[in-house]
Amino acid sequence: MSIVVVGSVAFDTVITPYGRVDDALGGAATYFAVAASYFCPVQVVAVVGDDFGAEHESVLSERGVDTRGIERAAGPTFRWGGEYSWNLNERQTLFTELNVFESFAPQLPTQYRATPYVFLANIAPQLQQSVLEQVESPKLVALDTMNYWIEGSLEELKATLRHVDILIINDEEARELAGAYNLVEAAETIRQLGPDNVIIKRGEHGATAFLTGNVFTVPGLPLRQLADPTGAGDTFAGGFMGHLASTGDHTTEGLRRAIVAGSVLASFCVESFSLDGIRGLCVDEIAARYRDFQTLTRFDDI
Amino acid sequence: MSIVVVGSVAFDTVITPYGRVDDALGGAATYFAVAASYFCPVQVVAVVGDDFGAEHESVLSERGVDTRGIERAAGPTFRWGGEYSWNLNERQTLFTELNVFESFAPQLPTQYRATPYVFLANIAPQLQQSVLEQVESPKLVALDTMNYWIEGSLEELKATLRHVDILIINDEEARELAGAYNLVEAAETIRQLGPDNVIIKRGEHGATAFLTGNVFTVPGLPLRQLADPTGAGDTFAGGFMGHLASTGDHTTEGLRRAIVAGSVLASFCVESFSLDGIRGLCVDEIAARYRDFQTLTRFDDI
Repeated sequence: MSIVVVGSVAFDTVITPYGRVDDALGGAATYFAVAASYFCPVQVVAVVGDDFGAEHESVLSERGVDTRGIERAAGPTFRWGGEYSWNLNERQTLFTELNVFESFAPQLPTQYRATPYVFLANIAPQLQQSVLEQVESPKLVALDTMNYWIEGSLEELKATLRHVDILIINDEEARELAGAYNLVEAAETIRQLGPDNVIIKRGEHGATAFLTGNVFTVPGLPLRQLADPTGAGDTFAGGFMGHLASTGDHTTEGLRRAIVAGSVLASFCVESFSLDGIRGLCVDEIAARYRDFQTLTRFDDI
Repeated sequence: MSIVVVGSVAFDTVITPYGRVDDALGGAATYFAVAASYFCPVQVVAVVGDDFGAEHESVLSERGVDTRGIERAAGPTFRWGGEYSWNLNERQTLFTELNVFESFAPQLPTQYRATPYVFLANIAPQLQQSVLEQVESPKLVALDTMNYWIEGSLEELKATLRHVDILIINDEEARELAGAYNLVEAAETIRQLGPDNVIIKRGEHGATAFLTGNVFTVPGLPLRQLADPTGAGDTFAGGFMGHLASTGDHTTEGLRRAIVAGSVLASFCVESFSLDGIRGLCVDEIAARYRDFQTLTRFDDI
């Protein structure tokens, strides 16, 4: 089945100890769409400026992503700049230029409205809500958000969360949203806001998923080569939702497999700058790395 | 098979957001011995003062631990005080009184010298080496150390590591010992110093083990109730070595099972102060929590 994703398309300037890129294609919707495209058809809702050229669009179209929902506006595309610390664990925002993104009012093309899987990437909760209202009968809705909205638009966020099945956020965001440091407690509090499943992204430590009736943790894959963590969370979400939409299996087992698929895509993402790590993957490479996660975590009965 | 452990026996004063204990029984050798005792016979080499009474010794003897190697010296027992931050992730040492530990010269009773498994807890590398020389033909040697020795006694530590099969340290110590931030690189560098297997403890994030030819990661179990992380690392080592000595299985599969057994014991340790979480366990509780780790980590083929 297919997925519709709404979120940012951006040009990123990123500095890490391993290199630098300027105005490289990025944005949550872009990372998500490319990652999900390995598993199922993906439709993107976003806005770009008149500096978004054919070479940028081809990154999506070469992966078969449906770009009819990308609005072209006059002016420059959203730009973001960030610099990571020596160990990649902290980052400082150098600049944020919203540009055409500032007046983004997402409109779903008619052909997107019957799409069963919906991913609301990190944008204003009101916009997430408006997208959700345009989808006729969503089968499964997942949402990402950030501290900025938790602090500034909490009521709108809570109103949106009531219609969400899966919340995908990082540990600090989960703690802030729930007002609890302990992640078991935080997940329980968040569940009462709507989402049955809470997936907490923990960077190099992987992800912990509080699913209905059980908890699943996948560790991060120890990697020798790291280049740039930008987009890893959205790539995780893309691999996760893509796999889930491809199987339609919403059981615990299906969710767990999808979480590992998301971790697989994220592990490729951080090995290169921009989308370079996830643009040109083969199905075999994805399957091999999935087996790497099995090797990493398997142990026998006591 | 049996294990001999050399390390500290101490009285700890510990303050965490969840409570406080004063002069509670602790020390690396104590935590290790109690944890390992669930799987195999354990012999302790340590020193205590004349304030170490029958009630303290009974914590070990009620678990069947052989205490003939605990030397009684005149003066007070080693004391340590520490206070943890609100989220338990940082701790400040309040005081360290070495007392009888200052002139500790470990002597193995004759009955310990043929013991096949050896754990050298975090003490001066020269003392670790002297214990190793007193064991006739060790079958497997594991060692823990800390920044203090890495910074102050590096050559002695390296000399000892040449005779060690398994190094069990935390991530910051591994990075400092290897001079590399990346853990894959750090483990490779450490392997060249002697240990075939490097197990890196990562606190609430579990442990990552660089074994011969493969890597294994076990996540931390998400716990609702946390009281005190003191001794969790030594408890992990005790559960690990105890299980390994009980099976004698040094294959990757055997090491992985033992690492999970260590994680099981550590998860009980942090739920209570001092040794309260690991003193009175039933075999069934240990097996049930081992299954919790299986539930936490299992996923199907893609």
